[in-house]
Amino acid sequence: MRIIQVAGYSNSGKTTLVEKLVSFATQQGLRVGTIKHHGHGGELMSLDDGKDSWRHRQAGAKVSAAVSKGALQLNVSREKEWTPNELLELYSNFPLDVVVIEGFKQSPFPKVVLIKELSDLKLLTLLENIICVISWIPLPEEIKQIESYELEAESNYLKFLLEKLRG
Amino acid sequence: MRIIQVAGYSNSGKTTLVEKLVSFATQQGLRVGTIKHHGHGGELMSLDDGKDSWRHRQAGAKVSAAVSKGALQLNVSREKEWTPNELLELYSNFPLDVVVIEGFKQSPFPKVVLIKELSDLKLLTLLENIICVISWIPLPEEIKQIESYELEAESNYLKFLLEKLRG
Repeated sequence: MRIIQVAGYSNSGKTTLVEKLVSFATQQGLRVGTIKHHGHGGELMSLDDGKDSWRHRQAGAKVSAAVSKGALQLNVSREKEWTPNELLELYSNFPLDVVVIEGFKQSPFPKVVLIKELSDLKLLTLLENIICVISWIPLPEEIKQIESYELEAESNYLKFLLEKLRG
Repeated sequence: MRIIQVAGYSNSGKTTLVEKLVSFATQQGLRVGTIKHHGHGGELMSLDDGKDSWRHRQAGAKVSAAVSKGALQLNVSREKEWTPNELLELYSNFPLDVVVIEGFKQSPFPKVVLIKELSDLKLLTLLENIICVISWIPLPEEIKQIESYELEAESNYLKFLLEKLRG
């Protein structure tokens, strides 16, 4: 990867230049990534932040990041759909003990299934590797072979899940 | 890394459960990452997206991602400041030809410097590895040993920079 930096004081047109360069290089067939450093030290954690990084993406950047101190927001856009395994490989770059995945319900990882109404019960036959059920409604007797909790029994199921996460 | 999935139909309380689990596990000393799959296939590219992923972070997730088809938004929050080298290492996970960095002006990579007014000229002595200057104002004669362009000479400097990026 070749690297180039755009430097200058505030309002000297850095983001505009990056946009032009990204757009031109992308047109010429290069795959471009960008990194935007927010010198002001904002948190980037609010939803309306990262506008400059968004401009980088609009210009054609495949990967863009906005970074400020310890906060990093990275955007990647590609044709191919992301799989959980690819995401977990990316996560191996960071020091984590556990990963909680919301969705991707066809994946084979240990699963908590939420049941809101009777018709949701079909999930229990459709999904694999169910470790527990948390239910808004009373469950039929035949389900009771699976570890199950009422939605209100928060401290019970959190304790059960934490044990699973600790192995 | 241990992995757990939260599955269920829309509005069955998945994000709320993830929040509770992340918060509890974080309190117990675990470093938690989260992944949120947007089944609806939105673009995630607009700025007001990723609200659920934001809830994961608020609950204590160190790394969180919102993913929809080929679009990925990843947030990492840590104490230690990010350096350009660490970010570039992360970027080596993706198939990119070039990376354009906006800011981090103390870093040693090849640099384009934007000059808006006379007082900005001090950047030319403060920064290292300057490959060209793009200026809003006429430059003094003694600067002319550096490759320099007027702000309006867009196609000229873009061509120069693309050659640098192609090596």
